[in-house]
Amino acid sequence: MGSFRGHALPGSFFLFFGFWWSVKYIMKYVCKKNKRTCFLGSRAGFQRLEIIEGLIKISMSLTGMTAEQFVPSGPHLSLYNYEEKHWADLMSWQHSTMYFFFGLSGLVDVLCFTTHALPVSLSKMMLSNAFFVEGFILYFHTHGRAMLDIYIHQLLFLSVIGAAICIFMEFFFRSNIVLELLRSSFVLLQGSWFWQISFVLYPPDGRPEWNQSDHSNMLFLTMCFCWHYAFTYFILGVNYAFITWLIRSKIKKNFPPDMRLLKNVERDQESEEEI
Amino acid sequence: MGSFRGHALPGSFFLFFGFWWSVKYIMKYVCKKNKRTCFLGSRAGFQRLEIIEGLIKISMSLTGMTAEQFVPSGPHLSLYNYEEKHWADLMSWQHSTMYFFFGLSGLVDVLCFTTHALPVSLSKMMLSNAFFVEGFILYFHTHGRAMLDIYIHQLLFLSVIGAAICIFMEFFFRSNIVLELLRSSFVLLQGSWFWQISFVLYPPDGRPEWNQSDHSNMLFLTMCFCWHYAFTYFILGVNYAFITWLIRSKIKKNFPPDMRLLKNVERDQESEEEI
Amino acid sequence: MGSFRGHALPGSFFLFFGFWWSVKYIMKYVCKKNKRTCFLGSRAGFQRLEIIEGLIKISMSLTGMTAEQFVPSGPHLSLYNYEEKHWADLMSWQHSTMYFFFGLSGLVDVLCFTTHALPVSLSKMMLSNAFFVEGFILYFHTHGRAMLDIYIHQLLFLSVIGAAICIFMEFFFRSNIVLELLRSSFVLLQGSWFWQISFVLYPPDGRPEWNQSDHSNMLFLTMCFCWHYAFTYFILGVNYAFITWLIRSKIKKNFPPDMRLLKNVERDQESEEEI
Amino acid sequence: MGSFRGHALPGSFFLFFGFWWSVKYIMKYVCKKNKRTCFLGSRAGFQRLEIIEGLIKISMSLTGMTAEQFVPSGPHLSLYNYEEKHWADLMSWQHSTMYFFFGLSGLVDVLCFTTHALPVSLSKMMLSNAFFVEGFILYFHTHGRAMLDIYIHQLLFLSVIGAAICIFMEFFFRSNIVLELLRSSFVLLQGSWFWQISFVLYPPDGRPEWNQSDHSNMLFLTMCFCWHYAFTYFILGVNYAFITWLIRSKIKKNFPPDMRLLKNVERDQESEEEI
Repeated sequence: MGSFRGHALPGSFFLFFGFWWSVKYIMKYVCKKNKRTCFLGSRAGFQRLEIIEGLIKISMSLTGMTAEQFVPSGPHLSLYNYEEKHWADLMSWQHSTMYFFFGLSGLVDVLCFTTHALPVSLSKMMLSNAFFVEGFILYFHTHGRAMLDIYIHQLLFLSVIGAAICIFMEFFFRSNIVLELLRSSFVLLQGSWFWQISFVLYPPDGRPEWNQSDHSNMLFLTMCFCWHYAFTYFILGVNYAFITWLIRSKIKKNFPPDMRLLKNVERDQESEEEI
Repeated sequence: MGSFRGHALPGSFFLFFGFWWSVKYIMKYVCKKNKRTCFLGSRAGFQRLEIIEGLIKISMSLTGMTAEQFVPSGPHLSLYNYEEKHWADLMSWQHSTMYFFFGLSGLVDVLCFTTHALPVSLSKMMLSNAFFVEGFILYFHTHGRAMLDIYIHQLLFLSVIGAAICIFMEFFFRSNIVLELLRSSFVLLQGSWFWQISFVLYPPDGRPEWNQSDHSNMLFLTMCFCWHYAFTYFILGVNYAFITWLIRSKIKKNFPPDMRLLKNVERDQESEEEI
Repeated sequence: MGSFRGHALPGSFFLFFGFWWSVKYIMKYVCKKNKRTCFLGSRAGFQRLEIIEGLIKISMSLTGMTAEQFVPSGPHLSLYNYEEKHWADLMSWQHSTMYFFFGLSGLVDVLCFTTHALPVSLSKMMLSNAFFVEGFILYFHTHGRAMLDIYIHQLLFLSVIGAAICIFMEFFFRSNIVLELLRSSFVLLQGSWFWQISFVLYPPDGRPEWNQSDHSNMLFLTMCFCWHYAFTYFILGVNYAFITWLIRSKIKKNFPPDMRLLKNVERDQESEEEI
Repeated sequence: MGSFRGHALPGSFFLFFGFWWSVKYIMKYVCKKNKRTCFLGSRAGFQRLEIIEGLIKISMSLTGMTAEQFVPSGPHLSLYNYEEKHWADLMSWQHSTMYFFFGLSGLVDVLCFTTHALPVSLSKMMLSNAFFVEGFILYFHTHGRAMLDIYIHQLLFLSVIGAAICIFMEFFFRSNIVLELLRSSFVLLQGSWFWQISFVLYPPDGRPEWNQSDHSNMLFLTMCFCWHYAFTYFILGVNYAFITWLIRSKIKKNFPPDMRLLKNVERDQESEEEI
């Protein structure tokens, strides 16, 4: 992983999942609010989606593990170098372990929604576990590196643990749109921060490296992390506006104006209760 | 911000909001307890108030950002000094970022209560986020300064995180008067502590500076922080007493004595359930 | 406070309250379980008790504050020594601040249960606050002392924060006997640990002082802290057994055997639901 | 305990309990889901099991305490060496204290389910307490040892605190299968990690010791900890599959095909609600 691509790859995975979750949960919420059945609302459709999500997770984690193990400088599945008597390329093994737990989470998703024997919330717990394990490894990962390198990984750790805690709380407060949006925002943040890391530590195109011990770089990155976070809210906002517009425009087509009026009244009462 | 005014300005903003929230939530609670409809109780009035609150937040954060950027020593929107090859005035940029997230929270408030498309609790989550981001930046803010300076900002950090956690919990336990009072107390504490910081670090009127490395100053400030906290409870108490007296005196005018008796009986039963 | 008595006094206060709370909450629970009305069950009795509790808290905190300020070596209400230009006896002021917040909690108790204008759970919040403030001051209290002194206060800090968190949780999960017992155990632990501190740091009767930098003393105190904790459970257990026996023996007197049988059946069903 | 056996013994205890709890809770859940009465479902059976569990806990903790005290190098119940004026073998005393709290938890289990006078959830609280005390002692246990030794005990601490927090949460969210599985996984992890510790620190069969200050050993153990965790999920998964198969095969025998159809329909509706 110690390369531009090694950080850009998981970054892209998390950006994809952050974006996908924001779309999924916003759509579910807006459909429910407008009392419309959509693809996600039906049980069979929902289950099929979850299974596909699980399969994508598995394939992504397999891709990641293969890349970590079989790049030219990788360990090629050997854990201990018996000739030189030291562990072989532990970094790659640690990254493989992180990918593995996401794969496990995907596997549990698929099992949950195909066999019906497992409790549904187990899939949430495994996902939360995968993030906790990622955070755990990250935390003990950067021993002995330069200051900036450590700091930039600490910020990554924050976004990972944020996502892990969010999913753990979703497990108790189910179908809570705000928690789900928070989770999406943390995952998007993690994805875009992975890209930031690859630009800072492995600048492409022969650009000069960042000064790893300049304190003002740390101050800038602190702020930059917040801007990435603001950016994730921009994405969520655009998503939300677009999906709401899409579903409302469909309602206008399908319902005569009178019924819409009726719907508005209902909606008002609901939001009153919400307050 | 590195000046008396730079700390007094946000201090005043937080004092204003802490005071306003205490008034709002106490009024809401006392009205509900006395089963009286007040301005805050009606839905339209409540929404209009929230929108105004959002607009005030936006204007305050714009004021703060403008002040940070365009004071004579500010960065004037330039982030990198290309001539001397270093970041330009990162402190001001960090403060602008903090203000920005409060502005974002104000924007979400306005959108929530005008369009009705967003979930109402989103406005709480954004506010909690704004405090968390403020705390996050504060935490990594004081690298390399004098001991007392660091310590006084750590205490500020405590009050910020207290408010952030409180608002995050309000999100799960809605309309809980005690949590809302706790939040107000933390925000008031933060405001008055900002003023304390400006007096300690930038003593006005040419008074001598505090000895930044004297340990007994730290001990005093620890205690002083608690006294500020006790002071916020004094403000909340006075507020509570005044509002209760105001609303009860209105009831006395509007209701004949018999009905009041009836009301008292009802109230007693309620509080019994509360126990 | 820097003396045997200065630690034994608050220790006795906390032992008294820990014991009293264990009696109160166990009696309440056992009465409810045996469907018997007792003094604590009636509303007026319960309120009178709470008011008395509040008054005791106030008088104890006044005692503590007076002792801290007016012992011969105390600050006698002067905060700054203008002649020698340093703060006067900050330790005593910090201890007074701790006592003050417990007094505030007592005041809120009295106001809550006499005026009925305040929300009942406010008294819990103020008590939790008092413990948090105590913990906060303790945490920043021992700067620059010997290792053993710091460590023994850290353990005290643990017991204080345990009580504070417990009471904060009681605020959400009301009338939960197990949480209430946990709280009592932490408060008893704090009380007995205060006594332990006074024996370790200020050995009476001219016994030799403990070696403050011997690591094995720290190991012993870690274990000793656990034994104190086990001891609080012993007290709670004896209390529980005695109160249960007392109330059951009263039932036997008052009810004919047939009704008791009926009661047993009911109780069995309940505990079944509990499982 | 400072030996291979001293770590293997508690490791085996925790492996046993982790495995047993996973069997118990999975069986309970699968029985309930398939609407079948099983031994665990009946009240008397469940209580008898809990009492047996308590007795096993007590006997295990007695075994552990005896072993710690009366091995040849143990303290033989003497706490202070008056001749050489130092504490006698504090490590063994600390381990005895840990065992003692598990014994206490067992005692409360037995009392809860035989007398019916104690609240049922008290047994959970005492178990959570036992884990917290274990974690507390572990945390302050490794002062002044080699880096690897400290680190490997920190990881153990993580698994202990994970179990303690899990059980504390179970106390609020009762009969939650996912939390119960999480608890089992942490306890299994703890058990297998104890074995790992004994292999790392006291390699049997005269194998060479691990280099205690090699950083790559730490990196490997971080990862190894995650693999142990993955392994606990493997055990849970096999358990779950086996128990589900067992109970379904019994249903097939006992019910005619038509009724099974009916059951399936019911089950589908339930899982729909669950989503």
